[in-house]
Amino acid sequence: MRSLNYPVVIVNFKIYIESTGKRGLELAKLAEKAYKETGVCIAVAPQAPDIRLIAENTDIPVLAQHIDPMTPGAGTGAILAEAVKEAGAVGTLINHSEKRLTLADIDACIKRARQVGLISLVCTNTPEVTYATAALNPDIIAYEPPELIGTGIPVSKAKPEAVTEALQLVEKINPHLPVLCGAGISTGEDVKKALELGTKGVLLASGVVKAKDPYKILVDMAKACL
Amino acid sequence: MRSLNYPVVIVNFKIYIESTGKRGLELAKLAEKAYKETGVCIAVAPQAPDIRLIAENTDIPVLAQHIDPMTPGAGTGAILAEAVKEAGAVGTLINHSEKRLTLADIDACIKRARQVGLISLVCTNTPEVTYATAALNPDIIAYEPPELIGTGIPVSKAKPEAVTEALQLVEKINPHLPVLCGAGISTGEDVKKALELGTKGVLLASGVVKAKDPYKILVDMAKACL
Amino acid sequence: MRSLNYPVVIVNFKIYIESTGKRGLELAKLAEKAYKETGVCIAVAPQAPDIRLIAENTDIPVLAQHIDPMTPGAGTGAILAEAVKEAGAVGTLINHSEKRLTLADIDACIKRARQVGLISLVCTNTPEVTYATAALNPDIIAYEPPELIGTGIPVSKAKPEAVTEALQLVEKINPHLPVLCGAGISTGEDVKKALELGTKGVLLASGVVKAKDPYKILVDMAKACL
Amino acid sequence: MRSLNYPVVIVNFKIYIESTGKRGLELAKLAEKAYKETGVCIAVAPQAPDIRLIAENTDIPVLAQHIDPMTPGAGTGAILAEAVKEAGAVGTLINHSEKRLTLADIDACIKRARQVGLISLVCTNTPEVTYATAALNPDIIAYEPPELIGTGIPVSKAKPEAVTEALQLVEKINPHLPVLCGAGISTGEDVKKALELGTKGVLLASGVVKAKDPYKILVDMAKACL
Repeated sequence: MRSLNYPVVIVNFKIYIESTGKRGLELAKLAEKAYKETGVCIAVAPQAPDIRLIAENTDIPVLAQHIDPMTPGAGTGAILAEAVKEAGAVGTLINHSEKRLTLADIDACIKRARQVGLISLVCTNTPEVTYATAALNPDIIAYEPPELIGTGIPVSKAKPEAVTEALQLVEKINPHLPVLCGAGISTGEDVKKALELGTKGVLLASGVVKAKDPYKILVDMAKACL
Repeated sequence: MRSLNYPVVIVNFKIYIESTGKRGLELAKLAEKAYKETGVCIAVAPQAPDIRLIAENTDIPVLAQHIDPMTPGAGTGAILAEAVKEAGAVGTLINHSEKRLTLADIDACIKRARQVGLISLVCTNTPEVTYATAALNPDIIAYEPPELIGTGIPVSKAKPEAVTEALQLVEKINPHLPVLCGAGISTGEDVKKALELGTKGVLLASGVVKAKDPYKILVDMAKACL
Repeated sequence: MRSLNYPVVIVNFKIYIESTGKRGLELAKLAEKAYKETGVCIAVAPQAPDIRLIAENTDIPVLAQHIDPMTPGAGTGAILAEAVKEAGAVGTLINHSEKRLTLADIDACIKRARQVGLISLVCTNTPEVTYATAALNPDIIAYEPPELIGTGIPVSKAKPEAVTEALQLVEKINPHLPVLCGAGISTGEDVKKALELGTKGVLLASGVVKAKDPYKILVDMAKACL
Repeated sequence: MRSLNYPVVIVNFKIYIESTGKRGLELAKLAEKAYKETGVCIAVAPQAPDIRLIAENTDIPVLAQHIDPMTPGAGTGAILAEAVKEAGAVGTLINHSEKRLTLADIDACIKRARQVGLISLVCTNTPEVTYATAALNPDIIAYEPPELIGTGIPVSKAKPEAVTEALQLVEKINPHLPVLCGAGISTGEDVKKALELGTKGVLLASGVVKAKDPYKILVDMAKACL
């Protein structure tokens, strides 16, 4: 299972030590196991140096956490779309709240991702920004109110009306564009509520990465998608 | 040969397509071959997604092109010092002219690199900035006037007095701190001139990456160090 | 005449020495004279330190070149919406190609401008970005392909189809949202062509600021709006 | 009294509403009154749109909160050294913790300030960064541990050894370079302690701007300098 299908649970590894290097690979293997047990798509977004390691040793979709809008050339320290693609990523997060991009660069990153065959998942912070992002025509949007990220207070329960508003605005532009939500998601129930609101899944990080038993949480979340 | 020794030739792979992924590994293998033929230290700085690939399949020092100053935690899209270290890098470029950092972050990156056991190589753009950087106590400095980068006009010939000034200023702070120069370096003669000025080697990119015969250039540069 | 009306000619003073301080005030007075002669709205966007000087001494609309998305508080070096409002600006440019903002910050700046009673004019670089910006609901959009800025090659003649596409996309979101175009505009004829394409005016800089006879150009441009 | 002399108390107005526009002018007039009563140099750093207002209506030194490293030309939204100079500033803060600059830009800003006749005051966050900044040869340094800014816990009491270390490092580069300290300074006693450590004064913000009686605090601080 290399491409995304819906509903989807996407685990952002961020730069947590628990998801760096070999520990990241172990966590990705737990995600793979949960996928195999439930059949629900679980994707992971490891750090750039770990993309190849995880893509080569698991059979779940791997996303980069970021790409730069640049084309091949001079650009020391940038993350080139071609490089993450060749390393085995099937897509990339763009504009995460911890890596905000200019509007011009989001547009350019979506185009670059499409050029090299990467799925573009753009993160947004307000209903208005979600609406605007839909106009840029990415492959997926993840709406995440930044004030809830990392809190354990799930967006799907704390701000259901904002999620609904974001979904309605996206529908005006493109009714087929999948929208996820994220921020504070840490249980299967949070995921279930997110799907009930009309999203196609969730983007989360600490809820799984910092969990005592990540496998159990992943299975709970996947089952909530069935 | 995993750690740096001097004189050194460091090849920055930037995000050139010629040095991305498998092509980057091939180029690194040519660098390794040139090192084995000459005994001169040649290091490479591939993109983050390629660090592990190259570190695992060659026996030359691998540097990251950039690290972020952050500690493990939330920080989507950042490059964590621990991650590049575990991927096999022995050091990292910091503050390349294409990835300028705040002064506070350069200080923090040098400290982070030291914490995890990475060699810190800070790039500078003027003699004054080189002097300031020496005060931050990195492991290596590479002085590169940005107006010459990628031009083929070698800093060692076009601005010898600026290189000398940078070296003198560094010496006032720490006479044992190795200083390289870069920008426009594309022949063995350019390297020789750089060493005559008192540098401990060179940092370069397109001169090798975009060369018709990178191996020949690398051997020429390495021999200029003997 | 303190608020904008259409068609409008907006002169961005940038940080040209010809439009700094007293010379900026003189240029603004020429713009005021051209407005009084023609009745066409001409607005100016001086540097932050010159807003009050020009607003107090002319009777044309003054825009800031930039505001930050911040609310009053700690924020050294930021440009607060309240401060430019109190200094006499009636609006502000947001996201000029020389001051690109994150998508989240554009959204926040539009909201901040509205809160304090400033007109928000957001600059865009592609038709897609223009579409997205319309979704953020600013008061005006100025579409400026960055590759033409400062060239003297007018967007209205070099890229009429891109202007038309941008206008059509905006209309899908909000048919009443005024769209200007900019980049390379330097004659009355360029302005005329821009209006024929359906824009409500132009945003320009060097075409007037660096002109030998700015007053003549301004009158030509204003007359092209009649 | 238009130029700085030592000891000095510098009040950074930040973007507090209490120090914006006319309220900023009133606060500056209190600072002027405290200077006239005590003879101790008190300088203020208002927002860019307020520099001219305060410089024209008071007789104390006015500093910009920030300049950009650019020379006159294209650069929408930037703060040009020439513009703040002509507006009446005698100097500028550079690299405040709320407006961090790249090392290359700090070097360029110091040079730009000198070119146009502005005093350059560079803010630093660690002893090492203070040492590095001294090597860039600014006119003044203000060492401010960011973790104490806005806390009311004075650096001069909470981290005396760090202030001393910063002073010793600066002395190795240039014994005549004045060093201030800042962060958490809110009483005359905090100022006294700062001077005892060997600094030439203080940089502060909320301690005065948010005070119930800013004049009283300013007089207390000025008297602590006698």
